[in-house]
Amino acid sequence: MEKVKIGIIGAGRIGKLHAENLVRIPQVEIKAISDIFAERVTPWAEGLGVQNVTDDYQDILNDPVIDAIFICSSTNTHVPIIVQAAQAGKHIFCEKPINFDLEQTQQALEAVQKYGVKLQIGFNRRFDHNFKRVREMVEENKVGDVHIIKVTSRDPEAPPSEYIKVSGGIFIDMSIHDFDIARFLSGSDVEEVYVQGAVLVDPVFAEHGDIDTAIITLKFKNGAIGVIDNSRKAVYGYDQRVEVFGSKGCVTVKNDFSNTAELTTDDGVYSDKPKYFFLERYQEAYIEETKAFIESVASDKEVPVNGYDGLQAELIAHAARKSFEEKRPVKISEFFTNAVTKY
Amino acid sequence: MEKVKIGIIGAGRIGKLHAENLVRIPQVEIKAISDIFAERVTPWAEGLGVQNVTDDYQDILNDPVIDAIFICSSTNTHVPIIVQAAQAGKHIFCEKPINFDLEQTQQALEAVQKYGVKLQIGFNRRFDHNFKRVREMVEENKVGDVHIIKVTSRDPEAPPSEYIKVSGGIFIDMSIHDFDIARFLSGSDVEEVYVQGAVLVDPVFAEHGDIDTAIITLKFKNGAIGVIDNSRKAVYGYDQRVEVFGSKGCVTVKNDFSNTAELTTDDGVYSDKPKYFFLERYQEAYIEETKAFIESVASDKEVPVNGYDGLQAELIAHAARKSFEEKRPVKISEFFTNAVTKY
Amino acid sequence: MEKVKIGIIGAGRIGKLHAENLVRIPQVEIKAISDIFAERVTPWAEGLGVQNVTDDYQDILNDPVIDAIFICSSTNTHVPIIVQAAQAGKHIFCEKPINFDLEQTQQALEAVQKYGVKLQIGFNRRFDHNFKRVREMVEENKVGDVHIIKVTSRDPEAPPSEYIKVSGGIFIDMSIHDFDIARFLSGSDVEEVYVQGAVLVDPVFAEHGDIDTAIITLKFKNGAIGVIDNSRKAVYGYDQRVEVFGSKGCVTVKNDFSNTAELTTDDGVYSDKPKYFFLERYQEAYIEETKAFIESVASDKEVPVNGYDGLQAELIAHAARKSFEEKRPVKISEFFTNAVTKY
Amino acid sequence: MEKVKIGIIGAGRIGKLHAENLVRIPQVEIKAISDIFAERVTPWAEGLGVQNVTDDYQDILNDPVIDAIFICSSTNTHVPIIVQAAQAGKHIFCEKPINFDLEQTQQALEAVQKYGVKLQIGFNRRFDHNFKRVREMVEENKVGDVHIIKVTSRDPEAPPSEYIKVSGGIFIDMSIHDFDIARFLSGSDVEEVYVQGAVLVDPVFAEHGDIDTAIITLKFKNGAIGVIDNSRKAVYGYDQRVEVFGSKGCVTVKNDFSNTAELTTDDGVYSDKPKYFFLERYQEAYIEETKAFIESVASDKEVPVNGYDGLQAELIAHAARKSFEEKRPVKISEFFTNAVTKY
Repeated sequence: MEKVKIGIIGAGRIGKLHAENLVRIPQVEIKAISDIFAERVTPWAEGLGVQNVTDDYQDILNDPVIDAIFICSSTNTHVPIIVQAAQAGKHIFCEKPINFDLEQTQQALEAVQKYGVKLQIGFNRRFDHNFKRVREMVEENKVGDVHIIKVTSRDPEAPPSEYIKVSGGIFIDMSIHDFDIARFLSGSDVEEVYVQGAVLVDPVFAEHGDIDTAIITLKFKNGAIGVIDNSRKAVYGYDQRVEVFGSKGCVTVKNDFSNTAELTTDDGVYSDKPKYFFLERYQEAYIEETKAFIESVASDKEVPVNGYDGLQAELIAHAARKSFEEKRPVKISEFFTNAVTKY
Repeated sequence: MEKVKIGIIGAGRIGKLHAENLVRIPQVEIKAISDIFAERVTPWAEGLGVQNVTDDYQDILNDPVIDAIFICSSTNTHVPIIVQAAQAGKHIFCEKPINFDLEQTQQALEAVQKYGVKLQIGFNRRFDHNFKRVREMVEENKVGDVHIIKVTSRDPEAPPSEYIKVSGGIFIDMSIHDFDIARFLSGSDVEEVYVQGAVLVDPVFAEHGDIDTAIITLKFKNGAIGVIDNSRKAVYGYDQRVEVFGSKGCVTVKNDFSNTAELTTDDGVYSDKPKYFFLERYQEAYIEETKAFIESVASDKEVPVNGYDGLQAELIAHAARKSFEEKRPVKISEFFTNAVTKY
Repeated sequence: MEKVKIGIIGAGRIGKLHAENLVRIPQVEIKAISDIFAERVTPWAEGLGVQNVTDDYQDILNDPVIDAIFICSSTNTHVPIIVQAAQAGKHIFCEKPINFDLEQTQQALEAVQKYGVKLQIGFNRRFDHNFKRVREMVEENKVGDVHIIKVTSRDPEAPPSEYIKVSGGIFIDMSIHDFDIARFLSGSDVEEVYVQGAVLVDPVFAEHGDIDTAIITLKFKNGAIGVIDNSRKAVYGYDQRVEVFGSKGCVTVKNDFSNTAELTTDDGVYSDKPKYFFLERYQEAYIEETKAFIESVASDKEVPVNGYDGLQAELIAHAARKSFEEKRPVKISEFFTNAVTKY
Repeated sequence: MEKVKIGIIGAGRIGKLHAENLVRIPQVEIKAISDIFAERVTPWAEGLGVQNVTDDYQDILNDPVIDAIFICSSTNTHVPIIVQAAQAGKHIFCEKPINFDLEQTQQALEAVQKYGVKLQIGFNRRFDHNFKRVREMVEENKVGDVHIIKVTSRDPEAPPSEYIKVSGGIFIDMSIHDFDIARFLSGSDVEEVYVQGAVLVDPVFAEHGDIDTAIITLKFKNGAIGVIDNSRKAVYGYDQRVEVFGSKGCVTVKNDFSNTAELTTDDGVYSDKPKYFFLERYQEAYIEETKAFIESVASDKEVPVNGYDGLQAELIAHAARKSFEEKRPVKISEFFTNAVTKY
């Protein structure tokens, strides 16, 4: 078996996570890692058996043995790297969002299409054991026609002020995952969005023109309706639940817990709180998404989450932002241009 | 102990339910029952030990020994009966809604206020063992400041076409209970409503200008936000769950089941579906609401759900209707008049 | 419909409970109540509409209009009352155990058989919503051949010392219910018993030659094996769970709770403890067992829990006692006599 | 950091599992693997980066750079390898049981003691996320004094006839894990055992003088009592639950499931069955036990499960066997000799 040769661009938290998962896949060889602080990441890279560490990602794109790259650098670098990687004939795994700007995202997708490379977007939750099972049940028609989709998505703590400032806002930074899950579970694109938002967790969000709590109503193209509720701070940990209700039934998933121990005393029944955050909850999902990407590259199959999916989630995020600002329901078609509709 | 003498007006399903619950309260004596089909209900009334059955509710209002009445007749009769009962100095338990028309509801409340009688509205769910416990936890500050309220409320089957026609529509007929629960759990009035609705269960709803599926976003005066999801048909039974999320935690309640048996086989884990409908689920809640009313009358205490609560729920229902029709968020204040604000 | 005329003998806690349940059954008329403290119970009896209160139970046996009696007096009176009632042609509902002595129990059963009256034993748990559902699943062959039966049965608090002294010991006083449930769920008699017991709750049990904690192994005639664990004190409330494991699967039931509220905070997940004791947990079961008895009398059907069932549970209790004392497994057949085997 | 150099003896299913877990621990280097079918396992070993594969385990014991060995060969080889490894100064991780024979086990422990090496027994369940949490709660005195320990342990399918024949019987092959868990959870040795066993799954067990279903009662030295129920075949998967009941409360753990999806339809509530078998359920526990062993070797700390634990579990297994054969409770002290008591 020929190994898939990988280059990783950006070795921050998520880049490291992907690298550590990739070295555990027998079919993979990490050929090079680039990071603007190359020196800082070298010891870690060597621990993984990767000798080739550079501070210039062009070295990776120029390396002819590399089959595919993971883009884990900051959001503003995604589009130029995608375009160049596509030109260089590399398959691409890119973290979400592709870009804050729809036109730019579109450019990236055009390049991907033109050069015929694969592009997978890092919507890791589709690979979560729970959500995947819900999708299966929907596909197997266990719930019948989908009527209502519900997504609860709450982080355990708000990010620092500096992060909030450059995050692009709650919709493109946080809810974007929920928009993708809503599309994934319903099997339908979204047509209209309405947001009722608030600053209830921390006034710092208001300072950056952002919010920390939201209820987002969705109307899907297939007629179903849905709702996402978001909070930047659930003191009890990561709250990630979904529900799909339809003509034949309803499927729900609960949070994951680190154990099932239940203590009953004179005070009541007690158990430990849910897993803390995405690294704990989606540990396996991160592994699964990289396996799926490697498999797509190795066997020349379609990627399970493509550029169209990335674009759709961004479109919903933009509509959500507009809905919140203009206090009205906003149609996705308000953003449609000829170019965008192509994907 | 002096017994509280009760007259019941209207002996349809809900009137009979209240009567049967009342006879089990030692402090109560049902003196008379009126129904337009008096003959039909007489045998049932006699079985309860009530000899005095009439087809004219005026007989009840004119009976000086009667302390309080239960209005269980059709919605269009509520207001005139409330007004006359108030004039007659009778305390009143009235089923929801008071009226489809806000002005009329207001007239009823004015009469109640003027004559100083008690008026309790039949929002039985406040007395449900689960929702009551959630409210307690909110009051005990277990969840901290309330950020998000979620209400799932789905009926097991759609009513017949003739009922849909005269029901006043999903918001005033069905969601009104959820509007009250949302106010009850949040401890706050509602400021703004947005509805995303659909006809997904049965086209007959569209024929009557009604819908059968809805996601209703609420903005509360205390800053919290909320969402209700409604369906006229959950094939698995009555789906009645709530969630209150706040700065200190989150409290949820599940449905009630007729048993806890869980069967695990080669096919998976199986248990019976939830209790079928409101008569099963809210059996105890109906008893508790009548006990609370009797206690209020006997001890001259405030009723736990008053005319103001009835009016507020109706206001939200009207705003929801308008939101659905005009496809925009609607403020409750759009309906405010001097008169209404008094309560 | 002819009403079933009932006499109640003994108006302590359990007698009162049965009386209050019986007055709610339309088919029933309580004609008389006897209690050695007749004066003390008269006001309560009148509240139920029963005028005829006597301190001599013979008055009840002699009353020709009475169809059936409830024996709720102390255990030592059960046998003579059963014998006399049978002679008087009254049907009998008798609390457990029939007697501490097997010979006496046998005499009572002989009288019942001879005079052809019905005898139902107060094993209320068979009518519990959970255990009933487990039995149904076993009968419907959902678990296949039964291999293992598990019963957890723990009281919330130990009875007072005076009670322990006259209780007959844990096996005949408390575990007897579990012996019956084990027979009920397995659909089989018990062949052999082994007890590992201990005094862990309170040394007062040792003073009376009793124990407060036990693990009781059962071997059933149909080849299945089972285990009961008992404690006189579960600080968190009444713990009543069962499990039936077989060739096709396993069915379990959990405890009942007064609500389903689940609070998740920074400290973990919290919910209220189980229902406190038998009056809360088996409230409906007590009603159901009286309904079943009345139905058996009114329609001349077999009672659902008969004298044979009462005797078998007593036999197991005696074997358990012997096993504990002799520290060895004891066969039920060690107690068999010709007479006993007849039932 | 100096790496811990490991040799693995026996590369069957469990040997491979340990090897694959060990290569993921940065602190570890697998220097050599021995297996009687060396050729067969070489490709797999090379895939792990282990070049040194031998068919003679002496090569491993003679290799001076090797710090510690994993004994994953057949049970009859454990004792001689332990003795030789101890002489060679290697630390030892040995799968359970040490031996079917108590004398031999004792010899092994003596060698370990004499040569001062570490010996950890492969009771992986102590490292399970659920059981570990239960033990923590017991240690934190959350359940108070321990009164009752309950262990449910059922395999998803019976092993093949050839395996049953050489397995040593259910107690030393299967229940031995439960004996260790019972000691672990109670924090106490066992004093007495009683077994009620049966052949209910497959008559093949009877052919080998073995049973497939058992209820095992335990009396602990600290006064607590306990019960284990075993079955060789739970059609729904691996059933591994425990419960500790004490003076302050009760802690239970449920099975693990591959997802939390719950589907409610007109037929009831459905979810997937538990994880299939030990490889799925104890995947993390296997990793944790090897990490703990490596940590003990690297930092010269006590191993978390030592030879004494291994011996105690074997003693209980022997007592269980004797109890089943002689149909009576058997004291562990019946097996005690001076030699054995030393550990």
